[in-house]
Amino acid sequence: MKVARFQFDDEISYGVLDAAEDGDGVEIVELTGDPMMAGYETTGRRLPLEQVRLLAPVIPRSKVVCVGKNYADHVAEMAGETGDGTAPPEPLLFLKPNTSIIGPDEPIVRPEISERVEFEGELAVVMGAVTKNVSEEEALSRVFGFTCANDVTARDLQLTDGQWARAKGFDTFCPLGPVIETDLDLEDVELATRVNGEEKQRTSTALFIHDIPKIIAHASQAFTLLPGDVILTGTPSGVGRLAAGDSVEVEVEGVGILRNPVR
Amino acid sequence: MKVARFQFDDEISYGVLDAAEDGDGVEIVELTGDPMMAGYETTGRRLPLEQVRLLAPVIPRSKVVCVGKNYADHVAEMAGETGDGTAPPEPLLFLKPNTSIIGPDEPIVRPEISERVEFEGELAVVMGAVTKNVSEEEALSRVFGFTCANDVTARDLQLTDGQWARAKGFDTFCPLGPVIETDLDLEDVELATRVNGEEKQRTSTALFIHDIPKIIAHASQAFTLLPGDVILTGTPSGVGRLAAGDSVEVEVEGVGILRNPVR
Repeated sequence: MKVARFQFDDEISYGVLDAAEDGDGVEIVELTGDPMMAGYETTGRRLPLEQVRLLAPVIPRSKVVCVGKNYADHVAEMAGETGDGTAPPEPLLFLKPNTSIIGPDEPIVRPEISERVEFEGELAVVMGAVTKNVSEEEALSRVFGFTCANDVTARDLQLTDGQWARAKGFDTFCPLGPVIETDLDLEDVELATRVNGEEKQRTSTALFIHDIPKIIAHASQAFTLLPGDVILTGTPSGVGRLAAGDSVEVEVEGVGILRNPVR
Repeated sequence: MKVARFQFDDEISYGVLDAAEDGDGVEIVELTGDPMMAGYETTGRRLPLEQVRLLAPVIPRSKVVCVGKNYADHVAEMAGETGDGTAPPEPLLFLKPNTSIIGPDEPIVRPEISERVEFEGELAVVMGAVTKNVSEEEALSRVFGFTCANDVTARDLQLTDGQWARAKGFDTFCPLGPVIETDLDLEDVELATRVNGEEKQRTSTALFIHDIPKIIAHASQAFTLLPGDVILTGTPSGVGRLAAGDSVEVEVEGVGILRNPVR
């Protein structure tokens, strides 16, 4: 099931995607509340998908947990700049603030103080339950669903700061969407990133250094994860710069395409 | 004015501290809502301070922004372990999640996976307005008030992870309180930390490498700061370990004493 958060007229609602009743196109079935909290009761209203504006499918009330260095090819490509080509034995965690989140089609704004803003396409996990000290075996039962994410990074500031919170935490640096897919077979999900239509990154979740159950278990040792908290699972090789006027797309097979213009 | 968040019976409210009407002790004047959002309308109820349980005075809906290496003596004491004795030219920012916040008298829980949990007494700033790209001159006008904080740190994991989010983000690793003082002359505020009554840290805000207007202006270049967001301004030298059974106190002159047991 695909869950969306959307705006229609001036109202913000949640909904689920469904085939149009007349068999032509996709409709959103409006829900009475946030399905992460309130289940799937519908208001009875159905709207054509093209008539609504999709928003970031979730704004966590607590945190966006991110994993660094989780694909071997990306660890290798960064080694020249960081001097460190080793993959961490456990998931390396950092945080992005919820103020960095934007939705589909909202612009990524390059800050004046960075000369080098880069895309990092990623698969994101949306938590569905209060989760603390969960085992790897139980971890996926606490997940609400999956979406596309772009872990936008001011690479120059990342390298000079050492700590990554600022370089990865600027407003607009965490595009999420377009929808949350609640059912995804994680064995071998294709992930691709394109800039102006040209493919820059392609990988499969089969190539994770640390898989999603491991990441959730590890993060929940430190932090209580709340429903709506988001976990970004790392980026493969191929990261690169974004310029004003670019259009960047992150596609996760089975979820959809997250597209954002760059300013 | 001193603002508190408190529990009485099963109800959580905000209030302001006032001399008792009979001249004996301190009372809390209950407010109808969160003064950061709703102003200072009172319910008319006054409660003796000792009959209520003080809670963390704020739980940010977005973030706890922290500054590393902001006192020269602390930069020097850490140089032996980090190999880096230089103070950053601009405030070095990192984030703690809001799930790490506890209030006065709540226990700091040492996680099993760390052998070395340490206190770091700090002055905390509580934001009072939506703040983006603010100048140093305007920065203090966006502040709601000030409180005591303990930037509890799993020092061993901080050193092995490199990124600090996990080592400083465990549940219970951000004690805040006991109250928010809305009026504080920042020129020369004394800060002290004690463990089991013995003084471990003492400094003055006169010794900041980067002062509070500079920190707020710098952070607001990256992040939109929301009302209730908290900024921890760094710790002086004297950091050290916490053991089960310890009692740790952070005192900020003019604010109060934040005391937490350690488990």
